[in-house]
Amino acid sequence: MVQTSNERSRIDRKRLEILRGAAGEFRRRGFEATGMRDIARAVGLQPGALYYYFKNKQEILYFCQDTSLDRLLQAARRVARLRVGPAERLRRIIVEQMKCMLDELQGSAAHIETHALPPRLLEKIIRKRDAYERLVRRIVEEGMPRGAFVKRDPKLVTLAILGAMNWSIKWYRPDGAKAAQEIADVFADFLTRGVKR
Amino acid sequence: MVQTSNERSRIDRKRLEILRGAAGEFRRRGFEATGMRDIARAVGLQPGALYYYFKNKQEILYFCQDTSLDRLLQAARRVARLRVGPAERLRRIIVEQMKCMLDELQGSAAHIETHALPPRLLEKIIRKRDAYERLVRRIVEEGMPRGAFVKRDPKLVTLAILGAMNWSIKWYRPDGAKAAQEIADVFADFLTRGVKR
Repeated sequence: MVQTSNERSRIDRKRLEILRGAAGEFRRRGFEATGMRDIARAVGLQPGALYYYFKNKQEILYFCQDTSLDRLLQAARRVARLRVGPAERLRRIIVEQMKCMLDELQGSAAHIETHALPPRLLEKIIRKRDAYERLVRRIVEEGMPRGAFVKRDPKLVTLAILGAMNWSIKWYRPDGAKAAQEIADVFADFLTRGVKR
Repeated sequence: MVQTSNERSRIDRKRLEILRGAAGEFRRRGFEATGMRDIARAVGLQPGALYYYFKNKQEILYFCQDTSLDRLLQAARRVARLRVGPAERLRRIIVEQMKCMLDELQGSAAHIETHALPPRLLEKIIRKRDAYERLVRRIVEEGMPRGAFVKRDPKLVTLAILGAMNWSIKWYRPDGAKAAQEIADVFADFLTRGVKR
């Protein structure tokens, strides 16, 4: 089947829509307990139609991690080009990551549960995740000699920042009292303040 | 069998020793994949002797979570009685929690993997964990009206602090380049600075 670019982008949009529904199911039920049937129901598709977009759950999981990491990498590269100081860079990247995790991924752990991926795909994801973590660490590192940030082990500080954000998969509920943007702002303020001189 | 208090404390010491070995195995292999045999080998006991101290893996897991939460609660209450300011209180509780997680628990997720507990035990653990989180939040809250800390949603700030620490189960290795005390100090400094005015 030859796909035109219109068809291609229609399929991509549909895949993103499925991703969002699947992430919600993964959050509610856990990845192991979620079946293709649950995902189909969540996005209002017949199971047969879902298989047109994704072969299996692993493929959805991979697409989920790959797409969110692409988004985070894009955001990090955009932030790196901005003509703003290190504190503002850090604040922006934190807001972007929180919004990606809480909004796009519905607070699910899908982007983190890499153990369910086959080794070949896992390797690709780990490479992208390492690249993203390096970009965040670079922001932390660059602020230190310039005197904008206090001098601390940049690797440990980066792990603390990423950890505070990643742990949100344990407590965030999309129907909770706080909006994703509000949470993102408090986290960005708190975590940036932690390094600012 | 009637146990004298001497026997009792000998058994308790042995149980703590087993706990440490088990936590190391849980970290290396994951809780699901670890068997009583692996734990016995790690602590240099015959499997039969291990069963004298713990009926099964769930019992070790419960003892692990219960003991570490008791330790955290004790530390939090000790800190609450100190005649020091909120920033110093927060710094100390962070150091205590990090050392408990990295040293006692060998950086394992055993204290967090509550889904493996039967409901009755799970409920007890959740009650203790909530009590601990309240004590940490109280430190954060108390610093705000006094002007020691900036005014931010104390619940979100507490979640960020606890999350940064808890995420260490994903990256900490007891044989890594950084000692637990060094990591604890950097985390305490960074996270306290995040709220200090």
